Amino acid sequence: MELQLEKLNKVAIIGVGLIGGSFALALKKAGLVEHIVGVGRNQQNLQKAVELNVIDSFTDDMQVALKDCDLVFFAVPLGAMQPTFERIKPFLNPSTIITDGGSAKSSVILAAQEVFGTLPTHFVPGHPIAGKEQSGVEAADADLYIDHRVILTPTNQTVQAATQVVTELWQGVGAKVEIMKPQQHDEIFAATSHLPHLLAFALVDLLNEHEELGDVFQYTAGGFRDFTRIASSDAEMWRDIAVYNSEAIAKWLANYGQTIQTLQALVENQDKDALFELFNEAKQARDKHIVKK
Amino acid sequence: MELQLEKLNKVAIIGVGLIGGSFALALKKAGLVEHIVGVGRNQQNLQKAVELNVIDSFTDDMQVALKDCDLVFFAVPLGAMQPTFERIKPFLNPSTIITDGGSAKSSVILAAQEVFGTLPTHFVPGHPIAGKEQSGVEAADADLYIDHRVILTPTNQTVQAATQVVTELWQGVGAKVEIMKPQQHDEIFAATSHLPHLLAFALVDLLNEHEELGDVFQYTAGGFRDFTRIASSDAEMWRDIAVYNSEAIAKWLANYGQTIQTLQALVENQDKDALFELFNEAKQARDKHIVKK
Repeated sequence: MELQLEKLNKVAIIGVGLIGGSFALALKKAGLVEHIVGVGRNQQNLQKAVELNVIDSFTDDMQVALKDCDLVFFAVPLGAMQPTFERIKPFLNPSTIITDGGSAKSSVILAAQEVFGTLPTHFVPGHPIAGKEQSGVEAADADLYIDHRVILTPTNQTVQAATQVVTELWQGVGAKVEIMKPQQHDEIFAATSHLPHLLAFALVDLLNEHEELGDVFQYTAGGFRDFTRIASSDAEMWRDIAVYNSEAIAKWLANYGQTIQTLQALVENQDKDALFELFNEAKQARDKHIVKK
Repeated sequence: MELQLEKLNKVAIIGVGLIGGSFALALKKAGLVEHIVGVGRNQQNLQKAVELNVIDSFTDDMQVALKDCDLVFFAVPLGAMQPTFERIKPFLNPSTIITDGGSAKSSVILAAQEVFGTLPTHFVPGHPIAGKEQSGVEAADADLYIDHRVILTPTNQTVQAATQVVTELWQGVGAKVEIMKPQQHDEIFAATSHLPHLLAFALVDLLNEHEELGDVFQYTAGGFRDFTRIASSDAEMWRDIAVYNSEAIAKWLANYGQTIQTLQALVENQDKDALFELFNEAKQARDKHIVKK
């Protein structure tokens, strides 16, 4: 793949953890940027990021960070998006591209609208579909995004040139970029990611509350371990996702609740044929779409 | 561990697949039995089991299988338990120990009661908590049960000597044996195993039905893959479990449905504090009980 992109002079990463740090490392490895400045609240963490060669410098002064900056990447929790827009607003050059890594997109766009009134023309909301169980800059990995999807959801105000630069940056670090509407993104990821996370949290909570069963966790096997792995995810991050994508998630929880009620009736009626059909369709669908992908 | 057990002369395995075949291989490896005879409907499969040295001989004549047999192990689906009791009944020596590997215990006991009137004194219902994604005799593994739990649920009619032999056999192949009441077993495994399997099937079905989202499975990541791994399990086996442990499973589906409703209300109300508490408690419980076990 031939990149059209000229090397950027300066990129600012706000929030240098797993996602922001991996983006920084990947950009450097691909030779796509001269200088990366990190911004964050934790001075020690930023110091460590410099020592690990994840970033070149750091500052807590947003004016310094944004000076002559080509692109700023928000790798902060969803709840911190609006305050971050507030902080960059006084120093933002209109030609500086803004992009982010938030797991919900409509709420980030709404936050920008609240702060800027009119959405910035160089704002390209994004969501890299990648992660690890570990977090923090120590877990940052230059290869994290290789062959992973990145969804971009440009707004009605976004100029094509900005979307193009962000697309080529992500492609340049090995990711597969896809463009969609913010609402479509939120709906799809509510179903495929947010819903399963909440279901896993809910199952662990349910068993944990039923003390009359004793320590039931000792009887769990590999299936339970895999099913609930995502319930060991960061609670603060998932609180934010539940709050900032609440509409789509509530809808999918309602859909799922209906499915569970139907299933409960089939189990109560010991409806062999319908149960087999339901399980078999799920197995076929998973084997087709997930196992073989 | 010092075994008291004398070597058995003859064991019959009814159903020589992953569970039955692994038990046979493990007994041989531990030197606990002279001769293992396999019984099943599929002659080719039994022939292969002999070739793989999983069993020593096979027959479809239950009289031959049960002649001078010390122990018979039912490794058949839950739906085949009652017909199997029917088949062994005419040829069963009262001193032959009967045990099984069924994932639900009350229904197996009920099936024996239906067939025998009074439960056999040498019937020791059991459930080895072990498995693999693969099935069939080719997947049989002498080490499958090492460090895995085996739950035994002797009935009120079971003589202690029979329970003792089955306990020592399982311990002899490396398993950790635990005794509990059949109802307690069914309740615990409805919660820790059957419920998560049904929830995983239900999620895949839900996404599969919503065609308006397009091929959503392409957007799933590692979390979804792990969460739904158990939805690739055998549909026929899970139909049987849902039917033969329906009471306990229906109860847990109802409990879970309540949890989902509560969660949906918290998401709709964007109740940050309650959501954080719920997610954090789940994460703490899982990290404590599962990650570190």
